[in-house]
Amino acid sequence: MQMLGYYNGKFGPLEEMTIPMNDRVCYFGDGVYDATYSRNYKIFTLNEHVDRFFNSAGLLGMRLSQTKEELKAILNDMLKKMDTGENFVYWQATRGTGIRNHVYPDPAQVQPNLWIMIRPVDVVPLDTKVKLITMEDTRFLHCNIKTLNLLVSCMASERAAQAGADETIFHRGGRVTECAHSNCHIIKNGVFITAPTDHYILPGIARAHLIKACKALNIPVDETTYTLDELLAADEVLISSAGSFGLAAESVDGKPVGGKAPELLAKLHAYLWNEFLEETA
Amino acid sequence: MQMLGYYNGKFGPLEEMTIPMNDRVCYFGDGVYDATYSRNYKIFTLNEHVDRFFNSAGLLGMRLSQTKEELKAILNDMLKKMDTGENFVYWQATRGTGIRNHVYPDPAQVQPNLWIMIRPVDVVPLDTKVKLITMEDTRFLHCNIKTLNLLVSCMASERAAQAGADETIFHRGGRVTECAHSNCHIIKNGVFITAPTDHYILPGIARAHLIKACKALNIPVDETTYTLDELLAADEVLISSAGSFGLAAESVDGKPVGGKAPELLAKLHAYLWNEFLEETA
Repeated sequence: MQMLGYYNGKFGPLEEMTIPMNDRVCYFGDGVYDATYSRNYKIFTLNEHVDRFFNSAGLLGMRLSQTKEELKAILNDMLKKMDTGENFVYWQATRGTGIRNHVYPDPAQVQPNLWIMIRPVDVVPLDTKVKLITMEDTRFLHCNIKTLNLLVSCMASERAAQAGADETIFHRGGRVTECAHSNCHIIKNGVFITAPTDHYILPGIARAHLIKACKALNIPVDETTYTLDELLAADEVLISSAGSFGLAAESVDGKPVGGKAPELLAKLHAYLWNEFLEETA
Repeated sequence: MQMLGYYNGKFGPLEEMTIPMNDRVCYFGDGVYDATYSRNYKIFTLNEHVDRFFNSAGLLGMRLSQTKEELKAILNDMLKKMDTGENFVYWQATRGTGIRNHVYPDPAQVQPNLWIMIRPVDVVPLDTKVKLITMEDTRFLHCNIKTLNLLVSCMASERAAQAGADETIFHRGGRVTECAHSNCHIIKNGVFITAPTDHYILPGIARAHLIKACKALNIPVDETTYTLDELLAADEVLISSAGSFGLAAESVDGKPVGGKAPELLAKLHAYLWNEFLEETA
């Protein structure tokens, strides 16, 4: 299949799939998601993404209809139906179907809906340089949960696109939180600095792998808050997400940034790329 | 029809309606809505709700596919198909259908989708007393836009239901903003006090009508911020929404509140109820 859609056991070409109008996602965005990439029909870091997915659901009081093993089996099964092994593998759970009502439905009566979307895409080459812009972080205070309330991330992404940039750095006052759909990090004087995992940022799995890579390479890691000014003066500025393991920025709001720790960056990139190749061999 | 669903010109029984899996609401909650009540097949304050709907869309950079007059005609047309004239009339627009991408689709290529949902419901009797709870307002900073990112409102409503209450008062630090799906107001020493319409609250149409009623009844109105402590010490605490024009609270977090300005409340209620009856005669 070219692009696959799945909903509660039914699947088909993504663009032909329909879902009930009364799915709670339609009125409230009431659900959680996760996503990663596949190569050679192998889903990269699947266990970690499924663990986070269950954690997101748990933080919203959603009891999922599948076990972790059942979910992984369904994802792997759907992936096999694809024409290519290199895909974006996305799934979400919404809090069931019923007449619009802010109050949650009785979990004994109404079960969450499972959605999957798979489509071909390649991982971004790690030597890609990205252009960033900045924007006040006006999102809610549940950014640690991977929810389907993503309107502000869309607004920020649209703003980046309009500016000819790739991503938007959010900041609360001066403090950098993360990006519209990536985590954000800086390197300064040989230290990898990244915001701590509180309710202002998503605990990124690419972020965790960057930290693991630093530790393996004896690069000190400082999980602490940092400001926009510190970012602008950093030796390197990096963004990471499921499909871009750690891309360096070349500009922020049109002004050059980073580029001052290329050897360290190259070591990190080599480590991350090798890990991806090995895990999906 | 008992309950009606409508999507881009197609309509039918609400529970049988389906929508494309790639509607942007499914991944991002990318859309806006509005809703009001009908009586005798007449939609109450329709012009004001449609004006606000277009304003919400405009604030998100969405160009709607209908004019205001076209939308009103569709809503009135759909309402005629109902078995009863007393309904909750709800509509929303989502930013089109396409492959998941945070960046907005090209508005020349992809138009917003129009949704309608109509189901029988009665306006809440105005002498109903409500129980409230309180919760830190963890929502985003776009509460002036009536968007479909309503997860925190669902969380707050669920919390109220679990506590045996009807609504949740949000506060940012000490400052009261609004409720999960209502505006909030207090009466103190004969003055009607309500938070100003900034980006922390929805500019409620029931709120505007309450203010209009106060002005007609020579009750002074103070559009200013107030604290949770001031609310707890108020003569009356009121909540308002499309279906509850201004209900007085009897408790907040289990402690009695209000009840100290019953004559003023009765005058407001009589004015609001009369206005509703006249406009939907």
